[in-house]
Amino acid sequence: MKPNKPYKKIEIMAVGSEMLSPYFQDSNSLYITKRLNELGLDVSFKTIVGDNWEDLLTSIKQSLSRTDILFAIGGLGPTQDDITREAFASVLKKKLLYHDEILEKIQERFKQRGMTMPVVNKKQAYIIEGSTVLDNACGTAPGLWLEHNKKTIVLLPGPPNELKSMFESHVWPRLQVFHRRSSEKKIIKITGLTESKIESILSDIYPNDSSIKLTILARPGQIEIHILCYSDSSQAHAHKKAIFIEKRILDRLKDNVFSTSNEELEHVVGKLLTMNKETLAVAESCTGGYLGHRLTNIPGSSNYFIQGVIAYSNDTKIKLLGVSHQIIDKYGAVSAQVAEAMAEGIRRTANTNYGLSITGIAGPTGGTPKKPVGLVYTALSWANGNTVKENRFLGDRKSIKFQSSQEALDMLRRFLMRGKENISDMSN
Amino acid sequence: MKPNKPYKKIEIMAVGSEMLSPYFQDSNSLYITKRLNELGLDVSFKTIVGDNWEDLLTSIKQSLSRTDILFAIGGLGPTQDDITREAFASVLKKKLLYHDEILEKIQERFKQRGMTMPVVNKKQAYIIEGSTVLDNACGTAPGLWLEHNKKTIVLLPGPPNELKSMFESHVWPRLQVFHRRSSEKKIIKITGLTESKIESILSDIYPNDSSIKLTILARPGQIEIHILCYSDSSQAHAHKKAIFIEKRILDRLKDNVFSTSNEELEHVVGKLLTMNKETLAVAESCTGGYLGHRLTNIPGSSNYFIQGVIAYSNDTKIKLLGVSHQIIDKYGAVSAQVAEAMAEGIRRTANTNYGLSITGIAGPTGGTPKKPVGLVYTALSWANGNTVKENRFLGDRKSIKFQSSQEALDMLRRFLMRGKENISDMSN
Repeated sequence: MKPNKPYKKIEIMAVGSEMLSPYFQDSNSLYITKRLNELGLDVSFKTIVGDNWEDLLTSIKQSLSRTDILFAIGGLGPTQDDITREAFASVLKKKLLYHDEILEKIQERFKQRGMTMPVVNKKQAYIIEGSTVLDNACGTAPGLWLEHNKKTIVLLPGPPNELKSMFESHVWPRLQVFHRRSSEKKIIKITGLTESKIESILSDIYPNDSSIKLTILARPGQIEIHILCYSDSSQAHAHKKAIFIEKRILDRLKDNVFSTSNEELEHVVGKLLTMNKETLAVAESCTGGYLGHRLTNIPGSSNYFIQGVIAYSNDTKIKLLGVSHQIIDKYGAVSAQVAEAMAEGIRRTANTNYGLSITGIAGPTGGTPKKPVGLVYTALSWANGNTVKENRFLGDRKSIKFQSSQEALDMLRRFLMRGKENISDMSN
Repeated sequence: MKPNKPYKKIEIMAVGSEMLSPYFQDSNSLYITKRLNELGLDVSFKTIVGDNWEDLLTSIKQSLSRTDILFAIGGLGPTQDDITREAFASVLKKKLLYHDEILEKIQERFKQRGMTMPVVNKKQAYIIEGSTVLDNACGTAPGLWLEHNKKTIVLLPGPPNELKSMFESHVWPRLQVFHRRSSEKKIIKITGLTESKIESILSDIYPNDSSIKLTILARPGQIEIHILCYSDSSQAHAHKKAIFIEKRILDRLKDNVFSTSNEELEHVVGKLLTMNKETLAVAESCTGGYLGHRLTNIPGSSNYFIQGVIAYSNDTKIKLLGVSHQIIDKYGAVSAQVAEAMAEGIRRTANTNYGLSITGIAGPTGGTPKKPVGLVYTALSWANGNTVKENRFLGDRKSIKFQSSQEALDMLRRFLMRGKENISDMSN
């Protein structure tokens, strides 16, 4: 076993007044955190500070007093508001030095686009003495890497595409020296069970081990379990731990798990259809096109997704889906019978292997005591039969639309996995 | 004029290790910031720190050294991880005092749900000496309001519903003493112009006045300008300033503005159709149901939205929309001719006043030199005619779907506002 490396405190600081408004969130730090976790490193602090000289100086001083590695993002642009370089130079009592070759690169960048460099950009050719310049392949602001009093300081541009490109090319290789532990990540995606149900199924297997982190991301209709395993000894050991805990969870949750490779449900269904060389058409009432939208978010979906009908009126259900007047009159448009007729109707019309349908009440109005908001019927039709499910979803209109589409996709997934028996075997 | 109140530095601290993972962002601070802006107050710092005793102590000490009002969110729950109360007590050198009446309230809450209070929750009945308890109407964790050395400290629970309810009932009234300036907010939503085009149109009217803040939120297909005006003298003055700048912007951007009341485009179109007592049906190829989904996100849309067809195959275009084989063969499925035939076809089939259609190449594959990814035709059909627009969108599959649906909706909006002439009058 390698000896443990000394623990490094890490902070990510986002600089920019817009992130102190109600409109913008710092998302760059999520990306950097994900990559740091892969090196076995955790983030201890995140700070957001505006383009204000005094506030920025205070933040930098305090952050450097509590961390070993500080990432500062943003404020490297050419305008007066961009003061990150200057603020760090001031706190570290270092000079800003002009570099001709940086200016040339910036000028070249403008020239390639048939433009002349504005005078303000000259500012970006000044770098903090003693720092290493990190090339910006996607913009004009160079990044800086700086070692000072045993602290590591990394200045990165704010635009995500510039940050990511610079991080991957120039920061990631330099971070390898901080590699602390091996890590392995697994993502388990589940539908058909509630969060509390999952917690009760798994309660006795939650590991009491700080090198294994389980994070549950829950929304109605979909739960994700993220497993992050660290190992001080080897990648193989981290991998083994992750596989072990993943298997225990899979054994308990069985086919309620729809993906272990971070795919969306529409992607999983698409892969199964592609594998079978089968086709699908959908008939939607309360989801209003959302099921079709999800299916067609997958590139290449035209290979198996043939057609959709958004039947927001009874007339459409009758004319385009062949649902009979009598059934609608007798049971109402939101009923198991109409759902089945819609699924069968679209399958026949589109001449596909499968038809999926959704009819329900997405709210906030339109509910009755007998048919409340959230009552949704989802149905699947195939060559030799139909099946229908009654669902009672909670939530707002958009959440009910999501849960409905999720349930319809999941009926098809379970059918494609194991056949008809599996559909009614959902234990929520 | 009232004398200026002394400027208060404000910080929002979110406590919770999950927010130092790659999965969660602090969104509570956006809500609090919005409300503080209404009092003429700005946020100077935001911090995120984990459930780690040493880190939390460091954060609290440093934050109190730089701010006058500190909001700390999260870590008030009953588990061992929840240490915010204890950490503040430690830094402020104050005792935690047990309050019987708080315990009774927590027990009552469990009792109402037919449950017995778990022992761990007893912890929540301890409050920092000298603080005011803020009732939690939606959960068990009480909040705390604390004045210490001229600083104001507010501890709030992390779950957004608990936080919002507590903030509105107990924090907002207490914050009124800090009311610094009157404020007025306006939101202008625009489509049909790029961000750079808007900036060049408005460049000479950007106010050089720190009491007026303009924020531009841009995504391809939709730009929002948020105007925030402050006044030291009166609400009427703030209002007057906001109206003045809003009018100047509206005069320049004209009918490229689709909302001044924070509505989505599908909502604006829905209101116009409702006003006219007219109806709509849609035929979608590359957007795959997204246009229908957006339209049906609006409650009550069944009054004007009748039907949609997702025509992902040529066969569907022919059978359900009556597009002729010859047109598809001659011009291809992605063509102005097919778009027009689809719009007219769906209008006739659904027997509606309007038909909207979209056909294009959403990518990432399927493009050719002549018909590249992002080439999208949108068409509108009405009783006396059709019109079609050729668009070349940039971006990924989802962005192209959004821009396509935005363009289709906007064609109808412009038609409903002013008639056919207006549609081709888009100056991008």
